[in-house]
Amino acid sequence: MRGAVLYGPRDLRFEERETPKIIKPTDVIIRITATCVCGSDLWPYRGINPVLQPTPMGHEYCGIVEEVGSAVTSVKPGQFVIGSFFASDNTCSHCHAGYQSSCQHREFVSTAQASVLRVPLADGTLVATPEVPAEDLIPSLLTLSDVMGTGWFAADTANVKPSSTVAVVGDGAVGLLGVLSARQMGAERIIAMSRHESRQKLAREFGATDIVTERGEEGVARIQELTHGIGADAVLECVSTQESMMQAIRSTRPGGSIGYVGVPHGVELDGEQLFFAHVHLHGGPAPVRRFLPDLIDLVWDRKINPGKVFDLTLPLDQVAEGYRAMDERRAIKTLLRP
Amino acid sequence: MRGAVLYGPRDLRFEERETPKIIKPTDVIIRITATCVCGSDLWPYRGINPVLQPTPMGHEYCGIVEEVGSAVTSVKPGQFVIGSFFASDNTCSHCHAGYQSSCQHREFVSTAQASVLRVPLADGTLVATPEVPAEDLIPSLLTLSDVMGTGWFAADTANVKPSSTVAVVGDGAVGLLGVLSARQMGAERIIAMSRHESRQKLAREFGATDIVTERGEEGVARIQELTHGIGADAVLECVSTQESMMQAIRSTRPGGSIGYVGVPHGVELDGEQLFFAHVHLHGGPAPVRRFLPDLIDLVWDRKINPGKVFDLTLPLDQVAEGYRAMDERRAIKTLLRP
Repeated sequence: MRGAVLYGPRDLRFEERETPKIIKPTDVIIRITATCVCGSDLWPYRGINPVLQPTPMGHEYCGIVEEVGSAVTSVKPGQFVIGSFFASDNTCSHCHAGYQSSCQHREFVSTAQASVLRVPLADGTLVATPEVPAEDLIPSLLTLSDVMGTGWFAADTANVKPSSTVAVVGDGAVGLLGVLSARQMGAERIIAMSRHESRQKLAREFGATDIVTERGEEGVARIQELTHGIGADAVLECVSTQESMMQAIRSTRPGGSIGYVGVPHGVELDGEQLFFAHVHLHGGPAPVRRFLPDLIDLVWDRKINPGKVFDLTLPLDQVAEGYRAMDERRAIKTLLRP
Repeated sequence: MRGAVLYGPRDLRFEERETPKIIKPTDVIIRITATCVCGSDLWPYRGINPVLQPTPMGHEYCGIVEEVGSAVTSVKPGQFVIGSFFASDNTCSHCHAGYQSSCQHREFVSTAQASVLRVPLADGTLVATPEVPAEDLIPSLLTLSDVMGTGWFAADTANVKPSSTVAVVGDGAVGLLGVLSARQMGAERIIAMSRHESRQKLAREFGATDIVTERGEEGVARIQELTHGIGADAVLECVSTQESMMQAIRSTRPGGSIGYVGVPHGVELDGEQLFFAHVHLHGGPAPVRRFLPDLIDLVWDRKINPGKVFDLTLPLDQVAEGYRAMDERRAIKTLLRP
């Protein structure tokens, strides 16, 4: 089997790897139908997170069950399944509370940019679609493995309601799907912060009512202006730098909520500033598993089309070009087909 | 008129000050029935916050209306009133959202350790009791001006529910009234973190079911042990130092909530740590005004007795001793009577 392995900054290779096998009775082996490159894959790709050894890559996946471990009861060979980037037992206290990505037995699924994948804790992790999907549904179903679930978590966590005024910081795939999620939750006004024309266009298609091109203090001033000095009710923080976090905090009205969903890089929050901002702050790795059944329904019934975030599709063996295109911002998100 | 003035670290004087007068038509003048010393008064008293000039002190108050400005319609002379430490118009967007302490026209009430007080924005700030209260209700009614409203906000913000397991970090007056608030909201289990016997006793009286005497990492370990490795659903952070904030964050289960209600001093939150803790964080200056009507009812009907936090009562002219007793932790909280 071949798959993607990162050797160092911008040194991504597609090479022979050992084909995964069932290790524990709770494992499932799936043949990947589609996988993709995540914005977070770019942190080690760019050398911002160190790469200490050759590292198999990929944590977004969907595919056909090939083999199930002896303890697996919820899926069977031949089914099309989607799972989260964090495998979870879905039975522990944290899972029951809806925080499967903090499952007490969670395992990170990290080798999905390949043709075959082992998924641990399969009963708690995988959700099967009603039947093997039509080809045109594959991109949208794939997004549910991470990026769409993460955008949804941002909106859910930012407490988006039907009457809400929402601001979305970040026009990457997560931010764009945050726009779609806020629209789906009925937000009245959705302000997308974006400087890139193609992304603005997609944001509008997904439901953005306003575009703000300014960043930092100027971006905050624009949000305050658009909301008559009150601030947004809900802010989706989908960048995770110090600047973007402060932009989010300063764009939120007192009593409003911020959902932040990317691993923060070098972010330090000043306690006193946060205190007087009077905002709700919640975030973390999205508990994608919580949302999977409902989001599968929405895609299956063609009510949402999050797969539109993929503006580049490549055969898996061109995965290195997929990374390059995203690194150079020539693509929003790359879909890969084995 | 005489009142308390802070000249520098531990140099608090009770001296002649100009008697307040109506300045704006929305002002009210009240004759103070009772006032008190706040934990936050100790920051400048101890020199941790600089004292740049002689500063009148005091922001917790209740008393009898003496005179009302020409625009005031909701209270009249002779009524007994309580107000928040932040005067608010109670009509702006932030007030409507329940965040009166972030009112767009808020003014800090900062001269209450005196016999007479001017309260701005009186219609939005003051709430009258049904009649002039019995003497024994005065301490509890006074707490509603800040400390009880702040403990209540901590519990409200930490999302305390009838089935909740709650941890309270801090055994000062706010923390103790956080315990009382959590009990009133029906929490199943309330773990008070306290090393002082007299405060433990009051915490139990207010409804604590468990006492944890350890702090920092050891305190976190005890909370985790008591909650079977899950963490508390709701944590009330009532200290506001780096150590106490981290103690709160690490004691909360993924998906749980932290309410923090004291002005943070030197607190820096690491974004990545907060992200993987998966907690809800909310706090700020308590919007006491939001809770005043309901809390007055609870005190009036003798369902709660938050006035028990006052373990020292002094005539106002001994205010300096009131500060000293709290500074030296001989008293939890000092009530002052002009």
